[in-house]
Amino acid sequence: MNFAQTPTVGFGADGTALELIDQTLLPGRLEVLQLRTQPEIWEAIHQLRVRGAPAIGVAAAIGLYLASLEIDTQDPAAFLQQLAQRKAYLASARPTAVNLFWALDRMERVAQAHTGQPVARLRELLCQEAQQMLEEDAASCRRIGEYGSALLQEGDGVLTHCNAGRLATVQYGTALAPIYVAQEQGKRVRVFADETRPLLQGARLTAFELHQSGIDTTLLCDNMAAAAMKNGWIQLVLVGADRIAANGDTANKIGTLGVALLAHHYKIPFYVCAPLTTIDLDTPTGEQIQIEQRSPEEVTTLWYRERMAPVGIKVWNPAFDVTGQELITGIITDRGIARPPFDRSLAALFEAGK
Amino acid sequence: MNFAQTPTVGFGADGTALELIDQTLLPGRLEVLQLRTQPEIWEAIHQLRVRGAPAIGVAAAIGLYLASLEIDTQDPAAFLQQLAQRKAYLASARPTAVNLFWALDRMERVAQAHTGQPVARLRELLCQEAQQMLEEDAASCRRIGEYGSALLQEGDGVLTHCNAGRLATVQYGTALAPIYVAQEQGKRVRVFADETRPLLQGARLTAFELHQSGIDTTLLCDNMAAAAMKNGWIQLVLVGADRIAANGDTANKIGTLGVALLAHHYKIPFYVCAPLTTIDLDTPTGEQIQIEQRSPEEVTTLWYRERMAPVGIKVWNPAFDVTGQELITGIITDRGIARPPFDRSLAALFEAGK
Repeated sequence: MNFAQTPTVGFGADGTALELIDQTLLPGRLEVLQLRTQPEIWEAIHQLRVRGAPAIGVAAAIGLYLASLEIDTQDPAAFLQQLAQRKAYLASARPTAVNLFWALDRMERVAQAHTGQPVARLRELLCQEAQQMLEEDAASCRRIGEYGSALLQEGDGVLTHCNAGRLATVQYGTALAPIYVAQEQGKRVRVFADETRPLLQGARLTAFELHQSGIDTTLLCDNMAAAAMKNGWIQLVLVGADRIAANGDTANKIGTLGVALLAHHYKIPFYVCAPLTTIDLDTPTGEQIQIEQRSPEEVTTLWYRERMAPVGIKVWNPAFDVTGQELITGIITDRGIARPPFDRSLAALFEAGK
Repeated sequence: MNFAQTPTVGFGADGTALELIDQTLLPGRLEVLQLRTQPEIWEAIHQLRVRGAPAIGVAAAIGLYLASLEIDTQDPAAFLQQLAQRKAYLASARPTAVNLFWALDRMERVAQAHTGQPVARLRELLCQEAQQMLEEDAASCRRIGEYGSALLQEGDGVLTHCNAGRLATVQYGTALAPIYVAQEQGKRVRVFADETRPLLQGARLTAFELHQSGIDTTLLCDNMAAAAMKNGWIQLVLVGADRIAANGDTANKIGTLGVALLAHHYKIPFYVCAPLTTIDLDTPTGEQIQIEQRSPEEVTTLWYRERMAPVGIKVWNPAFDVTGQELITGIITDRGIARPPFDRSLAALFEAGK
């Protein structure tokens, strides 16, 4: 199977399946699942076979469209009622994934906006909406890639943390989009991928997708980033974002703050890459962002198998950290690059898009 | 078995064995080996059953004394010749461990200084020398602990990286010595232990020995240190050293540089703990220190079992990094604390000891 021609998530060939790369098998095996039933789709989201906020959103949208095909009624009101039940079921697959709810809400709103139309027409609208979300995501990542690639010079070394790549989106990714676009433009860049403990998204996913794409990639442990910077190998840092506050403070995978501080010390530009939908103007600063604490076993047992730390030891395992806006050189969005002061530049991007 | 009463390395009860904690079984099992034959001792050093420069040195010294018991001659010259062969054999167990050679050289010099004395007397001198090295190491770590504990306040949070604890020395350790002495003095401190990828000495050894000793210890992934500092949890950083240059530049486990930079940003004092024997006045700065590159498999397969990164990916896996002296608040030695400018303060410590 050719990874370059395999979408992370999409419609199956006949339009009656959700097609996705099973990311739990990477990097060992590239396998594409064709999912048709609701329990199958629920399980794939729950077990992280598909992960990354944009990819989850699109998978759920296609999933809800497929659910609509299973609803056995011609009564539009009964259809909407059953659709709401199917939506609640899919939403329960990952109770903290904001993008999952956002995508399902958006799908439901389309149907609700056309109450009274025949069921067949409602299904058609749901299909179109899921397709549009898929295309919007690809287009938005493509634009991030174009804005970002302009910052890259031939031969540059780029450090990235976690996976904000193709495998987290429909295509291109966010933090990796500038690298893929640079490659298309014939610019050679070298990527240094932090392995990203505890769940190793850098080693398993970023290293996999870049290596498969023929990009010069070196894997390193998180604690080696400082020495790589000191050696002069890194000209730019690109990371994704889980949530960006109105002032530019950015919540992203745990470890991002450390990378930002090191980049600051070595005067290496540090860019956050994210679509405008990741920016939450209702959150004034990073201080209002709650950080999820995850299971100690992610740290104490390697990849859930072998115990490496003593029984009874306390573990701190935050999923994210917040990088203060003062450490961020720019935020590369699908509508252009925001620069400090971010409270103004981010608001201006939203204004321009209205 | 009671860990507190189990020495890391020492003479077996009857004086004819090398006794050591098998560190490859930690943290799962505490087992003490009684090693008598040369192949057993060679294997224990080679397989890292004993590790940490001071502990390796003492183990090798006791090992060479035990070798002297096996030499079947009453001729002092033949004895010395065979001792040199046994020494070369033990030295081959870890070809880059400077402390191993240093300890074996010191043992050999004692015998050479008494050429012509009867073999029984030479054996006695070797036994005394090994015993003295053991006591010197314990005393030197104890002094580091006393100097360092004066820097600790009740309730302080201390971050450490890798294992420079009891398990790397005969007793107390270097970076952890101030914590053990503070505990004896009734001062409660909280320790945050970086897991220390790729070989997880922090998770396996530091977390184990501190937890066993009843010290409040929290394990975290290396990339979480920045967020812990930002949260205000860390008042002091204590790390060990593999080699300290004359100007204070310090080579230590990979990741130490990053911790130093983060501490510098958050204005947290960063101390290196090491006996004077770790300071190499013949190395002017860190630039002259060669960094060992280790096997990619340490990064790509977790604890040598499960492959987590794609086949064919490039890996950068330096064993150490160099922390510039400008990032170091002080160097806690067994002869007192050196402070900047280190070129002068380190030389003065050596002068005072003459």
